[in-house]
Amino acid sequence: MEKKTIGIIGGMGPLATADLFEKITLHTRAARDQDHLRVLIDSNTNIPDRTAALLHGGEDPTPQLTASAALLERMGAQVLIMPCNTAHNYYDAVAGAVQIPVLHMIRLTAQALAERGVTAAGLLATDGTVQTGIYQRTFAGTGIGLLTPEPEGQAAIMAMIYQGVKAGDLHYDASAARRAMEALLERGAQTLILGCTELPLAAQLYRLDYPFTDPTLELARGAIRFAGGETTD
Amino acid sequence: MEKKTIGIIGGMGPLATADLFEKITLHTRAARDQDHLRVLIDSNTNIPDRTAALLHGGEDPTPQLTASAALLERMGAQVLIMPCNTAHNYYDAVAGAVQIPVLHMIRLTAQALAERGVTAAGLLATDGTVQTGIYQRTFAGTGIGLLTPEPEGQAAIMAMIYQGVKAGDLHYDASAARRAMEALLERGAQTLILGCTELPLAAQLYRLDYPFTDPTLELARGAIRFAGGETTD
Repeated sequence: MEKKTIGIIGGMGPLATADLFEKITLHTRAARDQDHLRVLIDSNTNIPDRTAALLHGGEDPTPQLTASAALLERMGAQVLIMPCNTAHNYYDAVAGAVQIPVLHMIRLTAQALAERGVTAAGLLATDGTVQTGIYQRTFAGTGIGLLTPEPEGQAAIMAMIYQGVKAGDLHYDASAARRAMEALLERGAQTLILGCTELPLAAQLYRLDYPFTDPTLELARGAIRFAGGETTD
Repeated sequence: MEKKTIGIIGGMGPLATADLFEKITLHTRAARDQDHLRVLIDSNTNIPDRTAALLHGGEDPTPQLTASAALLERMGAQVLIMPCNTAHNYYDAVAGAVQIPVLHMIRLTAQALAERGVTAAGLLATDGTVQTGIYQRTFAGTGIGLLTPEPEGQAAIMAMIYQGVKAGDLHYDASAARRAMEALLERGAQTLILGCTELPLAAQLYRLDYPFTDPTLELARGAIRFAGGETTD
């Protein structure tokens, strides 16, 4: 089977984009450069902040998102992926702007959790992702209950994403965010969904060690398989 | 000043491409996604192996290299970079295929070493890079002497690149490569140039701890400055 070229609508943020690209590479079974899948990336940092647009009347990111999607399709991408949970609120507009399929990170995550028999998951995400209910809508009917942090814990997660990772602060104090995660586990979450693509980086940078589910990794695995590659796990 | 879009001719290999992209992101002074530079990447894994072409009559990578360069220019890239030392043997063909500037990783490395007052550097690289003399030609006239490993040491470096990093072997035994590096330092090298873009990954994966110079990082810094961004260091 001819392998497909993967297109990544990136820049939300750029480190999350690099993380997805690295996960695609590390999880593809390959012994040499030429065994890897071709990947095209537009790290389009002109895309306005998604949470600001959804909750605070900020600039609409739709025109930049659909422009990147169309650009990647013109360049030869045969399937698109978008490493930003909050941006999935604009999924229909992006999918409607191109003829090629767009994989849905949150749906892939729900499928993976259902296959593992998870019935209660904690959601760590931006205010934009939590308050628009995109996880809740996508998980409806899967049998997986979603727990979200109390307001104080949500503020701590949001601060770690924006003042920690997005600001590139390697010495950010993540203790309030840790308390929010432990509270979700105490309330019965079997796993914590890293529901913002900056959070796998936060987990690494701030040495957070909890039972996590990483939607970026689920998206990488889904994209490798869809493109005709073989995953290592 | 309007910032320029950076285009990366990638896939040589894909992990080295991700490493360069991450270094551009981490070394750009930015407090939010929108402060980062726009980056377009073609991780073109159809580019044939450069060392095989230069030394063993393998397929010529020029058509794929120039096609990626032209594709990135059409997409809107305003400056191109190529995270593969060996591919710089084809620099003139790539630069000739586009109207936009192509930064030269090895020249940027020579400039950085000269600024730091280095007079003797060890070169760790593929057979293709070492035997074609591209480092020696680029360093001529800079006052920096280049030391290359003895044949046995060169074979150990080559094996670590191909059987270690490119094959994704996290448990590769790097002890022969370590001996080659220590021999260069004993012969008077003040620094060891990681003259293959897989080697910064090898240094990390196999916990090599020597005084290294990383051309990928010099290329990242050069690209940030050329594109009008501000580096963090």
